[in-house]
Amino acid sequence: MAKCIVCGREAVVKIEHANASFCAEHFKQYYERKILRVLKGLNLENKCILVALSGGKDSVSLLYALNRLKKDLNYNLKVLHIQLGIGLYSKESLEVSKQLAEKLNLRLIIFDLEKNLGWTIPEAVKVTKKKPCSLCGIVKRWVMNKVALEENCEYVATGHNVDDIDAIALKAMLTYRPEDIERTSSPILEPNMEVNLVGKLRPQFYLTEKENMLYAQFNGLPIVETTCPLASRSKIFKYKGIWQEIDKVNPVGKINFAKTLVEISKKLKENKREVQQLRKCVRCGMPTYGRDVCAFCKINEKVSGVERHN
Amino acid sequence: MAKCIVCGREAVVKIEHANASFCAEHFKQYYERKILRVLKGLNLENKCILVALSGGKDSVSLLYALNRLKKDLNYNLKVLHIQLGIGLYSKESLEVSKQLAEKLNLRLIIFDLEKNLGWTIPEAVKVTKKKPCSLCGIVKRWVMNKVALEENCEYVATGHNVDDIDAIALKAMLTYRPEDIERTSSPILEPNMEVNLVGKLRPQFYLTEKENMLYAQFNGLPIVETTCPLASRSKIFKYKGIWQEIDKVNPVGKINFAKTLVEISKKLKENKREVQQLRKCVRCGMPTYGRDVCAFCKINEKVSGVERHN
Repeated sequence: MAKCIVCGREAVVKIEHANASFCAEHFKQYYERKILRVLKGLNLENKCILVALSGGKDSVSLLYALNRLKKDLNYNLKVLHIQLGIGLYSKESLEVSKQLAEKLNLRLIIFDLEKNLGWTIPEAVKVTKKKPCSLCGIVKRWVMNKVALEENCEYVATGHNVDDIDAIALKAMLTYRPEDIERTSSPILEPNMEVNLVGKLRPQFYLTEKENMLYAQFNGLPIVETTCPLASRSKIFKYKGIWQEIDKVNPVGKINFAKTLVEISKKLKENKREVQQLRKCVRCGMPTYGRDVCAFCKINEKVSGVERHN
Repeated sequence: MAKCIVCGREAVVKIEHANASFCAEHFKQYYERKILRVLKGLNLENKCILVALSGGKDSVSLLYALNRLKKDLNYNLKVLHIQLGIGLYSKESLEVSKQLAEKLNLRLIIFDLEKNLGWTIPEAVKVTKKKPCSLCGIVKRWVMNKVALEENCEYVATGHNVDDIDAIALKAMLTYRPEDIERTSSPILEPNMEVNLVGKLRPQFYLTEKENMLYAQFNGLPIVETTCPLASRSKIFKYKGIWQEIDKVNPVGKINFAKTLVEISKKLKENKREVQQLRKCVRCGMPTYGRDVCAFCKINEKVSGVERHN
């Protein structure tokens, strides 16, 4: 094994795309600096960030790092865990989330779909026949935004890593959905309070799955071991497979692709067509693109309606 | 083998991304219609198109198809072959180009680098130490534009296929060169005569290498069998390899990616930053982006200068 490029001691990890080896200590420093670099353009002083914590490696690393960087940027952190009701997977997610919040001495806000809405993700999938990941995404985005508003948080931070971003964007391009590129391809989306839309932060935009896993391990953090049983047939894994091939051709490609997406979406945003279509849902008041009733309310009405008739 | 979806006779080819099988006759019809669809938005009546003919499967198919579609769109065709001076490869290219022009009863304009400029591509590579494909691209673009102007042609048509377009764009994204996407990702670029820039047509923008090869074969056209010896180490082949993997995941991905690129570049072009920087080279008067002396003149001066000193 090579030497750590910072201190010269024995390295424990090699990051191909950075062409660098690190000891555990300096890997953690490198990792936190990459997050700091994404956030430093924003003025977060005394602002509140709501971190969405699932208990997976990405969100666990995110919360831990954001908690460490609090002293540098002077924001307040709140933590949200959404109980999806997906059997053992969700139980384990809740346990891990509780453990981590306790370890960091942070209050854990729990939004339980069953208690708050009367239905779980598996039930909603059954009724709506929608693809699980797509449906779950709609529900989580709605809950995160709603809780952030209630908690007076300007931003929601999510654990999207560069592998997620690249897979989503490549899928969008290979299935001809150019509008999806713009929505995904930015580490920071500013709030738009006129339509009740809080801002979004993706601090791990340029960090890989592998880097998040290493950061969690080097800090001895608890993480959920099982994967979501509903996600197993998701097409996104096929697109992640393509990236393994790209990695062999160009190990910096993943990061460069994300940087290119940012450039593209910056220019696309100057046209602002989509933003102009943003409005409040007539039912719940949450933001929606170009229609009266938002996607969440349509799901909620369908699932709740079916339950009423039972 | 399945049946031709048009006439029900035995099919000789299956086009995965179109989910269709064809007999030879109806494949040719399908192929020409795809070209017609790219061009039909333009008014080409009585305009002149200069077709760049290398003798490869792409440009041979292009010239043959454009010659057949002349009666539909009423344009005039002229044909240019650029003699690059790359040994046997160039000799064979010239032979094939002459054969095809004769077969179609079209005059062949030959621009010979050696005779017109005093140097060949291999000589220029040696002197400038540039990558062969990149250098050759600069030279060919300059020659095509210059000859088109001299011949009063509004457009140059080149044999770029969807595999080329996608590989170039994916390479641009994976090496963080967003500006390259805009330049490549359009089947039609309008002329800008203020800066002596003729228009560009890429009629095979949505056709694959395989489709071009089949069209050439079904029409019994001569094509160059050898590949350019200078191109063998080009990185672009690695990016084409990635597309073979993508094909396995999503056979329509190639075409969808090209369509997405067109959407993106359409929106990017509304910003027009690049176009505003377009100007005439102070040496040769040909168009150049954001600098006084164009890339071609720099190469030409370097190569000619060395030769003078010898």
